[in-house]
Amino acid sequence: MNKPNLYTCLSPALIHLYDLTDTIVVIIDVFRATSTIATALFNGAEKVIPVAAVDECKRIGSLVDGYITAGERDGKVIEGLMYGNSPAEYPREFIEGKTLVLTTTNGTKLLHMAIANGCDHVITGSFPNLGAVCDHLVKQNKKVVLGCSAWKDRFNLEDTLFAGAVVSRIKEHFTIHCDASLMAENMYDLHKNDIHDFIQKTTHWHRLAAYGLEKDLHYCVTEDVANVLPLYKNGELIAG
Amino acid sequence: MNKPNLYTCLSPALIHLYDLTDTIVVIIDVFRATSTIATALFNGAEKVIPVAAVDECKRIGSLVDGYITAGERDGKVIEGLMYGNSPAEYPREFIEGKTLVLTTTNGTKLLHMAIANGCDHVITGSFPNLGAVCDHLVKQNKKVVLGCSAWKDRFNLEDTLFAGAVVSRIKEHFTIHCDASLMAENMYDLHKNDIHDFIQKTTHWHRLAAYGLEKDLHYCVTEDVANVLPLYKNGELIAG
Repeated sequence: MNKPNLYTCLSPALIHLYDLTDTIVVIIDVFRATSTIATALFNGAEKVIPVAAVDECKRIGSLVDGYITAGERDGKVIEGLMYGNSPAEYPREFIEGKTLVLTTTNGTKLLHMAIANGCDHVITGSFPNLGAVCDHLVKQNKKVVLGCSAWKDRFNLEDTLFAGAVVSRIKEHFTIHCDASLMAENMYDLHKNDIHDFIQKTTHWHRLAAYGLEKDLHYCVTEDVANVLPLYKNGELIAG
Repeated sequence: MNKPNLYTCLSPALIHLYDLTDTIVVIIDVFRATSTIATALFNGAEKVIPVAAVDECKRIGSLVDGYITAGERDGKVIEGLMYGNSPAEYPREFIEGKTLVLTTTNGTKLLHMAIANGCDHVITGSFPNLGAVCDHLVKQNKKVVLGCSAWKDRFNLEDTLFAGAVVSRIKEHFTIHCDASLMAENMYDLHKNDIHDFIQKTTHWHRLAAYGLEKDLHYCVTEDVANVLPLYKNGELIAG
């Protein structure tokens, strides 16, 4: 039996190159949206509503009493929203049973592009839920595109390392004719044992560490500490 | 004194993300356009005229008696053109003093985008002229974008490896805040000693080896065997 294909797309600006029909798209935004999404759902959030614009976040947040609005710019909570983008802000005792309306830019853009291009379904992935993502992909036995959210469409290392971690774990179940996947796996293999040091060389580290977010970033590259499957349905991410 | 910035752009579809003002753009199309260009100029070609379309190749080729038209599709010389894309077709005894009108797709597209976006000047690079490219970039002391031609806009390994080779050789002369450059350097360091084996895992190898072009591809990743600087001026590449 033919194994399904797996591809890695390194930027939202390249997603149009992939036929997404009958494809599972994994949205990857390691620093920090998809790490925060996994953490909130793992800790019992009822759902996470990802939105691109701050105004939409406020609007949806105002629809239902108890919705939590969240988003940051330049390391600070956006004016008019309640919380930030840090996974550390969403422990079980706070987030359980609640709905998080989260503004993200890079990740949400890619998610909406995947939906618009007619993919089968979307899940989100980051190191904290690596195992859950891999289990789902193997079980589904469908074509996969690992979609790196990048940074303003530019290649980034942290999303690539996560794609590489997925390839490394599940490659025997897929047909992989894709230089980006091969590169990602090489980069993950090269750095899996020094990942906490290596991420300090990335451009995103420098951007976010300036806001004192080092602890967050180390958490975001820690594997399997929030093993839940965020599944996108009707505009919402729920634990699958 | 501040060192100039160096960036690596992994696909023509991402070139708009870079400000090319006062920037040297290095067009990289390892398999095989920029390897063939270096080889033809190293072997004494008067100039190489890179064109995107087959019709344009024929038109320019017909303007001057003695112009050599060249281009391949699917491993064969295009009907109506005289030669193929192989560097092995352009030894000194054949090409010296002649003009080569070469159709390429990925590389020429990127070259024209760089010019349209107002860069300072364009050179072309591949492993055979790695040293000449590095010497020029260090001497010029200007901002650099290493532009991978990719394959139909998709990331490819061979162009990335060349970008990594450049970064590896000249990084101390530049400011590099660019995840793509860091990745490229890592990939080059990882594979510089097994590059002839490693390239056999790339998608482009599989595409071209099917046409019996293995020897060409090994040549294209051999460093410093055609050390000339192809400099783009008024629509033509000349030895700089």
